[in-house]
Amino acid sequence: MTDSIAALTGEIRSFRDARDWMQFHNPKELAVAIAAEAGELLQHFVWQSAEQSHRRVEERREEIASEMADVAILLFELADNSGVDLAEAMRAKLAKNEIRYPVEKARGSNKKYNEL
Amino acid sequence: MTDSIAALTGEIRSFRDARDWMQFHNPKELAVAIAAEAGELLQHFVWQSAEQSHRRVEERREEIASEMADVAILLFELADNSGVDLAEAMRAKLAKNEIRYPVEKARGSNKKYNEL
Amino acid sequence: MTDSIAALTGEIRSFRDARDWMQFHNPKELAVAIAAEAGELLQHFVWQSAEQSHRRVEERREEIASEMADVAILLFELADNSGVDLAEAMRAKLAKNEIRYPVEKARGSNKKYNEL
Amino acid sequence: MTDSIAALTGEIRSFRDARDWMQFHNPKELAVAIAAEAGELLQHFVWQSAEQSHRRVEERREEIASEMADVAILLFELADNSGVDLAEAMRAKLAKNEIRYPVEKARGSNKKYNEL
Repeated sequence: MTDSIAALTGEIRSFRDARDWMQFHNPKELAVAIAAEAGELLQHFVWQSAEQSHRRVEERREEIASEMADVAILLFELADNSGVDLAEAMRAKLAKNEIRYPVEKARGSNKKYNEL
Repeated sequence: MTDSIAALTGEIRSFRDARDWMQFHNPKELAVAIAAEAGELLQHFVWQSAEQSHRRVEERREEIASEMADVAILLFELADNSGVDLAEAMRAKLAKNEIRYPVEKARGSNKKYNEL
Repeated sequence: MTDSIAALTGEIRSFRDARDWMQFHNPKELAVAIAAEAGELLQHFVWQSAEQSHRRVEERREEIASEMADVAILLFELADNSGVDLAEAMRAKLAKNEIRYPVEKARGSNKKYNEL
Repeated sequence: MTDSIAALTGEIRSFRDARDWMQFHNPKELAVAIAAEAGELLQHFVWQSAEQSHRRVEERREEIASEMADVAILLFELADNSGVDLAEAMRAKLAKNEIRYPVEKARGSNKKYNEL
């Protein structure tokens, strides 16, 4: 099956509209739900070291994948409802970050662009 | 240009690897960054009513799109690094929610599945 | 019993030190745990209207109080470990907000100080 | 000055009521604001190692203290508005955790109680 953002967004829209849920899905509410689901995703890794977090993914891949899916579903819908082309916004951000983080300066560094 | 998750993930991977950043991008750290960016997205809507949040998107579309892009970029990378097929996980979640939220019971309701 | 921040912080410190957990409680990790617990608190209110959120508190007061306690415990410890006097920081913030949000301009408005 | 939660909550209430803001401060909205501020606090530590996070606190103590204050102010108000005695809820949670994390089993371990 296709992994196109537009196709997946169409499936999300069908799910939502069959339930008449657009009335609850204003931009704020979607942003709230995204933050709550990002919190659930994070919950799997609290107190874990970087090394432990790799193992955690092995042990709980399905659960963690399900939290990622929750964030993605809400995010694709928010972009759609906001008239944002998510793929384009992602490429615009990568292009911006190409400038903010020039390869020679950023290589191997975890500093923010304004500290490089 | 294509909006395939796999294609976008490839672009993210190139950006990351040119900077040798994989060393910082363990699953925990990506989940931390996702939660922080979801917080930035939410920040645009704090204290706003649902109605106001529509206007906010009009006024700040580029800024808000940029926050969405941050979350999406990190999420696509986390899925990739975790061996998760994000499109498949999203469809699995929608299928699960089809059962949790049957159309007849869920239509027009904002209740959670365990309260329907 | 006293509700002094210092006294409560002392109790948190005893709990932590009896378990030799200071090794895990660096500032970053505490900030991660606070964000995850704030996400759990938020989870109780997702998709709810303002009105519904009042009822939710009535129905789930103990559960919600327990999430608030989680955030507070971690926050008091973070302040303590960071050499921050939380009461003083709170009063400094209120003083700053007195200037940012003058009563005559801010009354009845949900605008941010930079939009007033 | 006193660091009693009740006294600080009284100061927060005065600030809010002088601006007639109770109309915006329903439980949901406070939980949303707490999550957004917890995200801002977290933002200071993204991509940082545990060691780096100690230095970060040294370098940005005032800024970070100000984010902690934001979370605390909102949390004290949420507890107050929800009829929750925060100090009591914190002690109840510590007591619960004394049972969940017995000293002999939990010492030096970062495991969750259900994994000990």
